[in-house]
Amino acid sequence: MKAIIPFKKKNAKSRLSPLLSQSERVMFAERMLEDVIRALKDSVVDKYEVLTEGSLNEAINGAIRRIQEPTLVIMPDLPLIQPRHINEIVSADADVVIAPGKGGGTNALFLQEPHRFRVDFRLASFLNHLGIARDAGMSVYIYDSFFVSTDMDEPEDLVELLIHGKGTAAMYLREIGVTLEFDQGRAHVKKK
Amino acid sequence: MKAIIPFKKKNAKSRLSPLLSQSERVMFAERMLEDVIRALKDSVVDKYEVLTEGSLNEAINGAIRRIQEPTLVIMPDLPLIQPRHINEIVSADADVVIAPGKGGGTNALFLQEPHRFRVDFRLASFLNHLGIARDAGMSVYIYDSFFVSTDMDEPEDLVELLIHGKGTAAMYLREIGVTLEFDQGRAHVKKK
Repeated sequence: MKAIIPFKKKNAKSRLSPLLSQSERVMFAERMLEDVIRALKDSVVDKYEVLTEGSLNEAINGAIRRIQEPTLVIMPDLPLIQPRHINEIVSADADVVIAPGKGGGTNALFLQEPHRFRVDFRLASFLNHLGIARDAGMSVYIYDSFFVSTDMDEPEDLVELLIHGKGTAAMYLREIGVTLEFDQGRAHVKKK
Repeated sequence: MKAIIPFKKKNAKSRLSPLLSQSERVMFAERMLEDVIRALKDSVVDKYEVLTEGSLNEAINGAIRRIQEPTLVIMPDLPLIQPRHINEIVSADADVVIAPGKGGGTNALFLQEPHRFRVDFRLASFLNHLGIARDAGMSVYIYDSFFVSTDMDEPEDLVELLIHGKGTAAMYLREIGVTLEFDQGRAHVKKK
């Protein structure tokens, strides 16, 4: 069983630019990847590959076309993920397991037969993947986790990391002075 | 085992006013409450009470002070909740079960001994409830669900309901012409 992690270095996390400088965004993206890899290493998944090339769809579809074993496609910006989540995702009883992300996204996708699947991360990828699986006659399990759904795209997402995070990405944010503030009962982030 | 649902009628869901009129917000809030009550009715919880009085903290603390049986405090704006979630929350092996909401919130709180607890929904209530439980020497289980974490406060939250929702609140949104649109790869909502 393997995992593939698509990781974009160029302009990584550009929607965090209101809060973090370019070098901070690069560091933060690397720390998040580190947290995901640590969770994978402590899970039942026995090997992983980080894909850095090309577009998301091309990179993943190029890889899974050739893979003959069950494979987990997992996003690199999930700093709240734990080994337990990965073990649960890969042991679900279905041909395809989808862990939804916020806004119709797909944060993790487990494929029993990756070479029979193609990913489509454009627009509401959750709905795309549901449709692709059903068209191929594959059974689907929707993996329901708040912590796996919480990817880090926009400043408000960092609220969750500051509140719930214990890994290296959360530590990095705190180191560079990102903290919570409260406005009208709602938590936001600010930076010193 | 009982459930209490605090439900505010006045100015309900005011942060949805960029998208929904006042009467639509009232209707939408009532449909969400209906979805939550339906999930409760199909769960192991055998009775529920809707609290409409006063402030959130006062209403809930006034109620739980007098309750001598295990009690679930559950928010009324969780239209993606299913009976399975409720059954899992109330069967977790801990004195206190907290289902986090976005932004440091608490969307469901199960108390084995409600009269020994007091809620505090100000600011990051998740952290408050964690602290209150620990100060009282109560064990805590964090219930991890994307669908339970997804409350409906702001227009962007409706994206999740349109994508994942199957209940009466999702149906109502579709009836009044709320649909998804895509901008730079991210899903938003618009209204005809």
